[in-house]
Amino acid sequence: MMNKPLVFTIFGSTGDLTYRKLLPALYQLETRHLLPESLKIRCIGRKNLTSQTYLESALSWLQKGSRFPFEQEVYDRFSKHITYIEMSITELNDYSQLNEKNKDIDHLYYFAVAPEFFEIIANHLKDSGNLEYGSHGVILEKPFGVDENHARYLNERLSIIFGEDKIYRIDHYLGKEMIQNILTIRFANRLFEGIWNKDYIQEIQITASETIGIENRGAYYEQAGAIQDMVQNHLLQLLSYVLMDKPHDFSPRSIQSKQVDVLKGIKTKHLILGQYDKTGDLLAYREEAKVDHSSQTETYVALELEVEDERFKGVPIFLRTGKRLNQKATYISVIFKPVEGALFEHLAPQQEMLIIKIAPDEGVYFRFNAKKPGLAQQVTPVMMDFCQSCIYENRINTPEAYERLLNDAFNKDKTLFTNWNMVDLTWSFASTLNQFRKDHNVKLELYPSDGSGPKQADDLLEEKGSSWIPADITDEAYT
Amino acid sequence: MMNKPLVFTIFGSTGDLTYRKLLPALYQLETRHLLPESLKIRCIGRKNLTSQTYLESALSWLQKGSRFPFEQEVYDRFSKHITYIEMSITELNDYSQLNEKNKDIDHLYYFAVAPEFFEIIANHLKDSGNLEYGSHGVILEKPFGVDENHARYLNERLSIIFGEDKIYRIDHYLGKEMIQNILTIRFANRLFEGIWNKDYIQEIQITASETIGIENRGAYYEQAGAIQDMVQNHLLQLLSYVLMDKPHDFSPRSIQSKQVDVLKGIKTKHLILGQYDKTGDLLAYREEAKVDHSSQTETYVALELEVEDERFKGVPIFLRTGKRLNQKATYISVIFKPVEGALFEHLAPQQEMLIIKIAPDEGVYFRFNAKKPGLAQQVTPVMMDFCQSCIYENRINTPEAYERLLNDAFNKDKTLFTNWNMVDLTWSFASTLNQFRKDHNVKLELYPSDGSGPKQADDLLEEKGSSWIPADITDEAYT
Repeated sequence: MMNKPLVFTIFGSTGDLTYRKLLPALYQLETRHLLPESLKIRCIGRKNLTSQTYLESALSWLQKGSRFPFEQEVYDRFSKHITYIEMSITELNDYSQLNEKNKDIDHLYYFAVAPEFFEIIANHLKDSGNLEYGSHGVILEKPFGVDENHARYLNERLSIIFGEDKIYRIDHYLGKEMIQNILTIRFANRLFEGIWNKDYIQEIQITASETIGIENRGAYYEQAGAIQDMVQNHLLQLLSYVLMDKPHDFSPRSIQSKQVDVLKGIKTKHLILGQYDKTGDLLAYREEAKVDHSSQTETYVALELEVEDERFKGVPIFLRTGKRLNQKATYISVIFKPVEGALFEHLAPQQEMLIIKIAPDEGVYFRFNAKKPGLAQQVTPVMMDFCQSCIYENRINTPEAYERLLNDAFNKDKTLFTNWNMVDLTWSFASTLNQFRKDHNVKLELYPSDGSGPKQADDLLEEKGSSWIPADITDEAYT
Repeated sequence: MMNKPLVFTIFGSTGDLTYRKLLPALYQLETRHLLPESLKIRCIGRKNLTSQTYLESALSWLQKGSRFPFEQEVYDRFSKHITYIEMSITELNDYSQLNEKNKDIDHLYYFAVAPEFFEIIANHLKDSGNLEYGSHGVILEKPFGVDENHARYLNERLSIIFGEDKIYRIDHYLGKEMIQNILTIRFANRLFEGIWNKDYIQEIQITASETIGIENRGAYYEQAGAIQDMVQNHLLQLLSYVLMDKPHDFSPRSIQSKQVDVLKGIKTKHLILGQYDKTGDLLAYREEAKVDHSSQTETYVALELEVEDERFKGVPIFLRTGKRLNQKATYISVIFKPVEGALFEHLAPQQEMLIIKIAPDEGVYFRFNAKKPGLAQQVTPVMMDFCQSCIYENRINTPEAYERLLNDAFNKDKTLFTNWNMVDLTWSFASTLNQFRKDHNVKLELYPSDGSGPKQADDLLEEKGSSWIPADITDEAYT
């Protein structure tokens, strides 16, 4: 079945997200001839621009934001899709200019605006009669609401207007190459599938650490904190991919129902919260613009979780994320149990470890034990490192997350978009963390910038005879 | 307990083995300060040489045979150990010059001569009274006899004279770094230990292919053939290390009893024999010096085996070895079963594979499936290659096999020497192969030099939907 002509309408098209991510992603799809010729891209903004001047304002972003060298010929093709429309998104009357009375057109909207505006745009689209002809889908940018209640309310409203199956909730993390690779590594390999359980796995750690602070997002961050900004979406997504049962197929329904099972079964055992402090020239979080001077908002979270699932019962799971840390790295560390029996005990072999590197490096690192070359009988860990991002060709071939996700949405593939059940559960989880904070009177620990976070997070693992696996462990391959 | 002073006596010290292997190995031990200062090395030969002229004749071998740069200072230390003794090994009277009436000396003999001479040397040592004082061990070079019966007879005689616990049967293969690594990889890693069974392993292949022909060893080879020269020792050793149960400890007794269990439980299902033919300038085997013009001696063997052991029941095991082939490589390929279920079926993932590279490259290669970078959902095999011999430092650190084995023998460590049970079983196995050849009327297939051996060996695997894993598969890592 041929797809119908598609009209793609971006609300918020003079905002950062559109310039930095959406337009470069669309441009890259054009480079790869993946934009249908009939595609119309309508960019909506309040600024007084023409399509011509809008494109000019976007040009430098396309040039620096693309993974491919800039090509005039591609740009010319790309430009033909774009129409700039000046309008106020809160003004019902303005929506009339969007109206197309053609039942054979598919419409896809991108709400690249704050969630406070989701409802009014949806209402106005409906009330202006825009939704009467053709089919209408909507891509929502996270956060899908400002808090749990708002998210639920919003979802109810949008579901009524568009229908759940027409809502694409984007979490660009899901578009990352290595996240999709987790399922392949786990389920396309007999070995990894067989050992992915408590008989073999001793501990799982997920780290998402950033070097930047909150930049200019004080107002947003004050209300969100690291729990909402990172834990409830990115870290829970990663966690659910790592722990989920094998899905029946790759349909979004199958995959997300297994992810939901994971999220339903996790329980918080420890929570550590931190906030970055003044260090040298770097501002404390409380000194940042639009941040309360006595803010209790966390910029760092470390969690110990346990899962009910029989396959992982008793396996400690540690998550951590934070800003202004000494490394920028997202990775999953799977630490295997020590070998059984006494045969090698006296040689103290290190535990085997599998590290899936998500970003910025992409790859798989595997550490196991071999005989140390030499006359004596000694054991030494050897490291194998499949560095996907080290391969130039792959770097070029790895699509940006938004590029992949827009392409999927154009093709009505919802695999990498989040359904409401998932979102709902992640909001609930965030609420339980906030409740845990109150119930256990969790203190906010100040930590210096450019370090590894609060000492308490190290202590948490040390008490269990463990420690956080540093990202640079994978640099040691072959030493 | 301090070791007693050691006298190490080499019979056959002007032969190839001594010059090429034993002296360089001893010299290397001296480089590493591993020769006890009190060690006396007595080199016995028929040639009229002095210790001085003998050392001169050995010098070039030391210079080119050592893995370390030659150093005069080491050579000076090394020379002090050496005494050359001119004598006839068949002349009882000559043995009197070896006599040392000191019960506090340990003696170790190295029979670096053809097995036909083992008995007479042992008898003369005894009859000349040499064995009356001190302790006396003997290192035997394979083959440990000229055929099964001779081996048994010889072993009986030598056991009476020296005692089984004083007999060191050397198979330099066991001194190879990566062979010792097999047990470490298998038993010092939870993962590999857990998957080393028929639930995960689909097929095991062991290849030992050589590019050289029989060189000047026509007389020996005519009587031995590839079965005795390679299969019964090297390949069975490798096989037993790959299949054996976990030993209780690293004592030779524990390890070899598990190896013996393996050898007792193997059964030949198919046998393919080949002989290299004239190809271009390269002689046919039958044209080589001291080879019968209608020789039926095999220079190539391929085998299919099955094992009784519950852990590997039904897993096909293929061995192959041959001369004048297109690659010089010894390696073990473990091919894993396809992943279960239909989830990835349409993406046709390749089977996971673990290759342990024994020689000349040493390393571990592991192939598994990952997502192919790009928008489409595709699976691609990725390769991890731990190339031990690629690391310069390790290359230097890897002791030569003889160096390791002599050092072990000096320290009375028999772990890497073969006990009689093992040897006996390997002779029996060689006999069953010869019987199989007769019973099944196995034809000798002529094969061209510089190829991959007889076509019949390829057909054998093809019938089972498999194929021989080529050594250069590991070159593809990262492509």
